[in-house]
Amino acid sequence: MSDLRIRDFGITIGNLPTGPRNAISDVAGVTVGHTTIDTPRHQTGVTVILPSPGNVFSEKLPAASFVLNGFGKSQGLLQIDELGSLETPIALTNTLNVGLVHDALVEYTLQRCQAEHVPALSVNPVVCECNDCRLNDITERAVTKEDVLSAAECASADFSQGAVGAGRGTVSFGFKGGIGSSSRVISLDGQDYTVGVLVQSNMGRTEDLLVGGERVGRFVRERASDPSLSLPGPGETPEDQGSIIMVVATDLPASDRQLRRICKRAAVGLVRCGSYLGHGSGDIMVAFSTAYTLPGEEDPAVVTVPYLNENLMEKAFRAAAEGCEEAILNSLAAADPVTGFDGTVCGTLAPWLSLYRRISPPQARISPS
Amino acid sequence: MSDLRIRDFGITIGNLPTGPRNAISDVAGVTVGHTTIDTPRHQTGVTVILPSPGNVFSEKLPAASFVLNGFGKSQGLLQIDELGSLETPIALTNTLNVGLVHDALVEYTLQRCQAEHVPALSVNPVVCECNDCRLNDITERAVTKEDVLSAAECASADFSQGAVGAGRGTVSFGFKGGIGSSSRVISLDGQDYTVGVLVQSNMGRTEDLLVGGERVGRFVRERASDPSLSLPGPGETPEDQGSIIMVVATDLPASDRQLRRICKRAAVGLVRCGSYLGHGSGDIMVAFSTAYTLPGEEDPAVVTVPYLNENLMEKAFRAAAEGCEEAILNSLAAADPVTGFDGTVCGTLAPWLSLYRRISPPQARISPS
Amino acid sequence: MSDLRIRDFGITIGNLPTGPRNAISDVAGVTVGHTTIDTPRHQTGVTVILPSPGNVFSEKLPAASFVLNGFGKSQGLLQIDELGSLETPIALTNTLNVGLVHDALVEYTLQRCQAEHVPALSVNPVVCECNDCRLNDITERAVTKEDVLSAAECASADFSQGAVGAGRGTVSFGFKGGIGSSSRVISLDGQDYTVGVLVQSNMGRTEDLLVGGERVGRFVRERASDPSLSLPGPGETPEDQGSIIMVVATDLPASDRQLRRICKRAAVGLVRCGSYLGHGSGDIMVAFSTAYTLPGEEDPAVVTVPYLNENLMEKAFRAAAEGCEEAILNSLAAADPVTGFDGTVCGTLAPWLSLYRRISPPQARISPS
Amino acid sequence: MSDLRIRDFGITIGNLPTGPRNAISDVAGVTVGHTTIDTPRHQTGVTVILPSPGNVFSEKLPAASFVLNGFGKSQGLLQIDELGSLETPIALTNTLNVGLVHDALVEYTLQRCQAEHVPALSVNPVVCECNDCRLNDITERAVTKEDVLSAAECASADFSQGAVGAGRGTVSFGFKGGIGSSSRVISLDGQDYTVGVLVQSNMGRTEDLLVGGERVGRFVRERASDPSLSLPGPGETPEDQGSIIMVVATDLPASDRQLRRICKRAAVGLVRCGSYLGHGSGDIMVAFSTAYTLPGEEDPAVVTVPYLNENLMEKAFRAAAEGCEEAILNSLAAADPVTGFDGTVCGTLAPWLSLYRRISPPQARISPS
Repeated sequence: MSDLRIRDFGITIGNLPTGPRNAISDVAGVTVGHTTIDTPRHQTGVTVILPSPGNVFSEKLPAASFVLNGFGKSQGLLQIDELGSLETPIALTNTLNVGLVHDALVEYTLQRCQAEHVPALSVNPVVCECNDCRLNDITERAVTKEDVLSAAECASADFSQGAVGAGRGTVSFGFKGGIGSSSRVISLDGQDYTVGVLVQSNMGRTEDLLVGGERVGRFVRERASDPSLSLPGPGETPEDQGSIIMVVATDLPASDRQLRRICKRAAVGLVRCGSYLGHGSGDIMVAFSTAYTLPGEEDPAVVTVPYLNENLMEKAFRAAAEGCEEAILNSLAAADPVTGFDGTVCGTLAPWLSLYRRISPPQARISPS
Repeated sequence: MSDLRIRDFGITIGNLPTGPRNAISDVAGVTVGHTTIDTPRHQTGVTVILPSPGNVFSEKLPAASFVLNGFGKSQGLLQIDELGSLETPIALTNTLNVGLVHDALVEYTLQRCQAEHVPALSVNPVVCECNDCRLNDITERAVTKEDVLSAAECASADFSQGAVGAGRGTVSFGFKGGIGSSSRVISLDGQDYTVGVLVQSNMGRTEDLLVGGERVGRFVRERASDPSLSLPGPGETPEDQGSIIMVVATDLPASDRQLRRICKRAAVGLVRCGSYLGHGSGDIMVAFSTAYTLPGEEDPAVVTVPYLNENLMEKAFRAAAEGCEEAILNSLAAADPVTGFDGTVCGTLAPWLSLYRRISPPQARISPS
Repeated sequence: MSDLRIRDFGITIGNLPTGPRNAISDVAGVTVGHTTIDTPRHQTGVTVILPSPGNVFSEKLPAASFVLNGFGKSQGLLQIDELGSLETPIALTNTLNVGLVHDALVEYTLQRCQAEHVPALSVNPVVCECNDCRLNDITERAVTKEDVLSAAECASADFSQGAVGAGRGTVSFGFKGGIGSSSRVISLDGQDYTVGVLVQSNMGRTEDLLVGGERVGRFVRERASDPSLSLPGPGETPEDQGSIIMVVATDLPASDRQLRRICKRAAVGLVRCGSYLGHGSGDIMVAFSTAYTLPGEEDPAVVTVPYLNENLMEKAFRAAAEGCEEAILNSLAAADPVTGFDGTVCGTLAPWLSLYRRISPPQARISPS
Repeated sequence: MSDLRIRDFGITIGNLPTGPRNAISDVAGVTVGHTTIDTPRHQTGVTVILPSPGNVFSEKLPAASFVLNGFGKSQGLLQIDELGSLETPIALTNTLNVGLVHDALVEYTLQRCQAEHVPALSVNPVVCECNDCRLNDITERAVTKEDVLSAAECASADFSQGAVGAGRGTVSFGFKGGIGSSSRVISLDGQDYTVGVLVQSNMGRTEDLLVGGERVGRFVRERASDPSLSLPGPGETPEDQGSIIMVVATDLPASDRQLRRICKRAAVGLVRCGSYLGHGSGDIMVAFSTAYTLPGEEDPAVVTVPYLNENLMEKAFRAAAEGCEEAILNSLAAADPVTGFDGTVCGTLAPWLSLYRRISPPQARISPS
């Protein structure tokens, strides 16, 4: 896969500084693993986000979700919303494999708990999905339980982006999308906190694509049939279909309600890339905090927890918006071309970005003076 | 007004002990004041719950709401849900006076803040309502701003129940309803906590009424036209109309999400009295905690707050259910008869309860053996 | 399994007439199938509700859900809420098998659509669950894909209730619970409509159980250790754990919003049986209407649909409340005793009901006069 | 007030055609009236949207709301969401006058109903607000009941935009904001439908402002202190505070659920102007359809209504997004400068747009080639 990120094209999103990896794993303890399925008929996979190095089932984390457009099959959000807690890794996959991946996360959790002698008779896996049927023969449901377990096993703070894992077969703005990530660091009372975002991008119409606010999608569409360019054109995207999953991690001591508010600002990043939240796009957000764990059955009736001053949430909101916008663009920038099961090649945004930049240098574009 | 409570009829609700007053004011710092309007045309009023002795605008409390049936005009719930905080007293009144009472609560808050040099340019009053048009000539909107301010001024831990304040003109199960309250004390880790409930009852069909789980409503309906009894019959209640407001206060250190969960259990008490959540009944719950105040703009970015162990919420749930059931029954037990603007007399449940008890002694009813 | 229903014990719930089967299948076209797993280690299964004889994927039905307590893993509700439509059968199973059953419903739908040449690349299975770990060795996840397919295949308007299918291992109020169903017929403008309910009951504490409003649970608890009765006592139920799924079907032309309102009244039936919506009980409702199908991609941009006059929903509400209460009681009445994987025998309510009735004859109980 | 619109600056938003007025009143029957309060201490007012020429109380319209950020005091949304219907005009005003305006809408409705012999004992006014305290001495609550009634009385399909009515004192992106409107026409099956939007804009930081996707806000901020320009600089906007109300009207036969979906896409327009949904900004959407009226108490139990094919909602979504974006920009383009109660002059975007356009001609900006 490509090591490119949107910043390699000279494009900076927002004003806040990034973490050292510019990825969700800048939130200490968060790791990501992929299993990528790449066969003639199957371009799909699974991506697993481990929210902490420990056993998240016995040390549950504050969490929230927000569904902006619910045309989707994400699982586990009911209980997150009721209890404000996350108790499994978050797995991403294709639409028709969510059941199997759910089952695999149950197994993963039971195994871990049995090994650690933690009683576990009820497990709430969080599984989100995009529909990768344009490149993947989705009805064959190629993901296996082992794929899920091995993705969790290989999770690392250093992980690939682009056409990997659950992003292997996704298409965004007519280009190869996939997994993208980014992070922002904000300072409150002199203390640094990190907001990290990871997306599985599978939405958008080409002509709507905005890159750093610029109408790159329109630029592409106007030239897509120009043979002299010999660039692979984007696929047809008559409608904004296919969904996007946005996962936000932070070490801010946010409550579940505050995490829900942060979730909503991830959607700002989505719209800034040009989405209008199409009918067929499940726009789903999940957020969790690593700042503290929730009391378990053996703990006292009342504990103390850190709590974020509501009046100072602006920076967290902007961090989520910027982080999500950049994560989406990274999913595009990092993707390699993928040939689908019917022979269609899904091209990438990268050569178009290079062309755009060559023709339209930044100084001319951004600051007319 | 009557000093009767449902326990005076030998009826005990649930198993948990009550607080010393068996009222919402058993939660330390919570007080209640009424202004009752009793004129030939107007049987209405306003009831104000002060959540704390301090300035709740500058020392906001954790809060939540839950709307089970939203056929109602309650105000202020949006912001409670977004920010998880209560910043004004909670006022109850009739349906067509909510606007005016809202305005009065703004004034109340501005005055208090100006006196204390607290900046206040945005205020979120919480005003809930029932429709008392069966007894009150509601379209004349008899409540005045002064009524609201004086209700707040006379708020006390000792307050009347029944046909007073915002309950002056309400009708419940065909009988005179009104303001009712109750409390429960629960113990967690050896520490006592109080859950208090106050209701404005205006819902229910006579034949559905359950008192302590017994079908008193059916008993009444079967005898309502028996002239030998010379008891005032209940009014006609073809449908379950008219709404109920349920306010829960607690000193449990519950988060806003946990308060929302507690709210829902107040609805259990409502159903146990015989309501089936009629189409025309706005079933609205608001809860707040006095256990801690939320950080203000001058406070640090991160504070610590107490947090209730989720696994130990059962008792709080049962307390809210029992407390709400008893509060509703108290609103009926405490009410005096009221003559409406069109001359209709709305009778009370009390004589029927006495009759029921005489005819059907507890030992025969409750424990067949 | 037993053919007993709660009416066989002389107990009638509510005032509305039932349909001919007094079951959800009184709604024309609705059928139910079970696969029951009964092995030494496994007491579990799957129950499938087919909402129509046709292909519900190509002829989607109006639907809604409501989550009163979201401690549960139900799947498919997000999309139901967004699109207001149901596109698969509804499957019930145990908590840890939802992933597998989801996968099986995907397969079921794909197979049917392929056979009928209906394009299907995105499927939203609805799978709900209760945790049957008290009797079933749940971590072994005994349900197979074939169990799901065969339950769907054998679906019939005549179906068993009690300890069958997804209700095989569930426990309610300390007694053997399971699948229960009931129906009500209401008349609007001279036309009859049916509201049917099916529950998977797994919640409640023994001492809270109300049967037809009477405190049978307390009666049982007081006698549970009386050896002279030689009746199997109920299990320990210190807390209200374990969940209940309530499915409502109707041929009323209700919109999705109206179906959500109807859902909420099913919860009234739940509370009337004595639940206080315990922390650990996922209280989940799903409703659908068979009165019309939703337009598909090939249909015109604007169609006409029947629409229920909002002002006449009271009867539907009462039907849902009564139907759910009776469905829960039927789940108890119909259940046979089941021996769990650890040798515990879960007894049934039936003998206690007989005893209660013998000791406390109805005329003495219900109408003191 | 100014007659300028954003299109007068050569800026076109989106691709869909507008209606003849490019305003919410392109939806047949919708009219808008303002009362503007312009005194030394008060820059505020009220704007009333009449959804139909008839009595909306007796002929209720399908409606929905959506709250993206609930830091706001909007009233009436609970009942809209429960019943899916609008029964009064929609009034906009300042934050501290919502109570009074609510009261005035009750009076307006009662008067109209009394005149028409329509029984009215319960009224659900819809009142939304922004906080105009930067220019208006808000704590004095200058709006009167007569202001509301006269705004309703003078409602017309031709109405002013900018610093008028409820927009008199609002500030958006540091510039004078206010009332803005726009419309889009979409075609489905050869039939034209209109989506109209009206906003009360009071949010945004200057540096975030995007005009037609271009970074005009940054352009302004870089030059704001340049004395040679002699342009009034924008106010300070350290945070995104102050709220925006977005009202969507349409003659599409959308159900309440579909209207909620359309609402959400208005938020897309908001984000496209540069908002990140700041903590202090109440982002509130209300939508209604004029395509049909809902059955009243006298109507049959079942009626037929038109219903929009869900699969064809994309155009409505894009219309709402484009319409809202343009309405916000129109609120800025149309505004005249306003001098606040403390002497501060709030300048307008117009001269900056002219400067921006002169320096950065469209051909250079939009289509680099």
